[in-house]
Amino acid sequence: MSVGEFDLIKRYFKQKTSLDESQSVASGVNVGIGDDCAILDIPDGYQLVVTTDSLVSGVHFFEDVCPYRLGYKSLAVNLSDLAAMGATPKWLSLAITLPNVDEQWLSEFSRGFFELANKYNVKLIGGDTTKGPLSITVSAKGIVPRNRALLRSGAQVGDLICVSGCLGDGALGLACKLGNQSVDNKSAFINALELTDPRNELGILLADYASSCIDISDGLVQDLQHILDASRCGAILAIDKLPLSQAMQLERNKQTLTVEQTLQYALTGGDDYELLFTISKRAYQQLCMHKAETTFSVVGEIVKDVEMKLKLTNGGQAVTAQYAGWDHFK
Amino acid sequence: MSVGEFDLIKRYFKQKTSLDESQSVASGVNVGIGDDCAILDIPDGYQLVVTTDSLVSGVHFFEDVCPYRLGYKSLAVNLSDLAAMGATPKWLSLAITLPNVDEQWLSEFSRGFFELANKYNVKLIGGDTTKGPLSITVSAKGIVPRNRALLRSGAQVGDLICVSGCLGDGALGLACKLGNQSVDNKSAFINALELTDPRNELGILLADYASSCIDISDGLVQDLQHILDASRCGAILAIDKLPLSQAMQLERNKQTLTVEQTLQYALTGGDDYELLFTISKRAYQQLCMHKAETTFSVVGEIVKDVEMKLKLTNGGQAVTAQYAGWDHFK
Repeated sequence: MSVGEFDLIKRYFKQKTSLDESQSVASGVNVGIGDDCAILDIPDGYQLVVTTDSLVSGVHFFEDVCPYRLGYKSLAVNLSDLAAMGATPKWLSLAITLPNVDEQWLSEFSRGFFELANKYNVKLIGGDTTKGPLSITVSAKGIVPRNRALLRSGAQVGDLICVSGCLGDGALGLACKLGNQSVDNKSAFINALELTDPRNELGILLADYASSCIDISDGLVQDLQHILDASRCGAILAIDKLPLSQAMQLERNKQTLTVEQTLQYALTGGDDYELLFTISKRAYQQLCMHKAETTFSVVGEIVKDVEMKLKLTNGGQAVTAQYAGWDHFK
Repeated sequence: MSVGEFDLIKRYFKQKTSLDESQSVASGVNVGIGDDCAILDIPDGYQLVVTTDSLVSGVHFFEDVCPYRLGYKSLAVNLSDLAAMGATPKWLSLAITLPNVDEQWLSEFSRGFFELANKYNVKLIGGDTTKGPLSITVSAKGIVPRNRALLRSGAQVGDLICVSGCLGDGALGLACKLGNQSVDNKSAFINALELTDPRNELGILLADYASSCIDISDGLVQDLQHILDASRCGAILAIDKLPLSQAMQLERNKQTLTVEQTLQYALTGGDDYELLFTISKRAYQQLCMHKAETTFSVVGEIVKDVEMKLKLTNGGQAVTAQYAGWDHFK
């Protein structure tokens, strides 16, 4: 069956965002899919926050990836960038390039995509469908009260360094998929890789407390360095304080992972999509009172350093180690 | 030489949009490239207008395409969508997937991209660089005074149907490149294909006069049908009134093109990126007085038709013909 481009877009992407008039006003979508552009209403006193991320077959995912998970993750990585700014996600554009029209695949992809979109009440407002090698580019747009966004450049000497959730599971999941690492409970780590939960609720909360923020997509060390460079300061990172999942601790206890491997995943593994933020000690106390159930850990402190370096400690003692993040072209 | 992703982005895309403070305020860019997201200021009383278009190697361009022209066109097709809404272009996101780091290629691509961006004073505010099969996705953002955007749905019975510029040159250029058509002055048509001039100045002007608008990317017949469907009306299109370039008229006169071929390109050829708009007869008179040098032609009239059909005439006489537009998956 030959399915035209317009039919395709309509069937899998338009119907799922059909809005009745009342929803349309609340969502800020003045004109959605179906014209040359979308038209969006930005509330007075807010700024627009925009990010764009591509997922390419063979680079970010395997060609035989479960389309449900691919749809989910292509959105999750973009929502994570909005979380890192403290922005409320609102709208999505989706540019998808497909080698052919596989309706089963499209159905599953859009199911994963909209499951996450609906969780955060984000609306698909346009995009493009093209024939070609499989790749997905999502542009996510959010709003933030004027001048309240979390930047990388706000860290101050004396601030605590915190991370949400646990570190390294995503990178370990990738290593399992590549056959580079053998562990007992593979699926726990592959789930962490493919069903990343973006930290948007925490990000919106942090806008009132944190001094700087970034999401960990390239690894803790590399992403912390971005904060140090932008804020022109140094940091001490306590490698004995890195939060590890129960699943990872279990593998370490069973010695399917060495301590060094665990550390390597936690320090340099990409694909965690946790929030890394700095916060004054006073604001940290307030944040802890505000939200009892928050899952974040203190892992270090911002220090004065004109060379903007990151130093590692273990049990309070300095350790030396070279760790590099993730870079496609290296 | 190994060039990291971050260096790449900085070298070819960041420096060319460096803004001093005064420019930054005027441009609406509160935070540009270099954080997790960009932050943009939308002026009070305006709406955000957003479009996304991908260009994929082997589909929208040949692998050996001149990178300068590719950079130019990947932006032009997006600006054209903003023109069709009557929006003022403001900001761009660029997601580019490259098989390898070719600095010469990147230099030329960015030169073409920024030449057009600077012409319209549009700022690159973010994006993504990935390794993979060559493809480019641009998301262009503009602003329009609240509720003043040109939609496809505003055409009224009795309105004139107009097109800007000339029709069919882009499609003929593509046919020349594919070796499907032999003409004397190939380069004129290949230039029309690859160095499309988006009609943003005209689009902004039309926001005060036209009743509906679309840009011709899939061919006149198919794009006019989108207006008819959205506006729930029919149309009469005078095929003897279609504006043809001097270059195309010359080929027809020399009989390197038949009359039927000329007509086919003008009616159904994609890649023109001219504006197709409807306008009341009264507003048309005002528009003509307002701008003496406008290059647009009246090619038909909107009529009442519950079946929303397009009828063709030649010298006032009905003609029958079946023409289809461009569809990647057909």
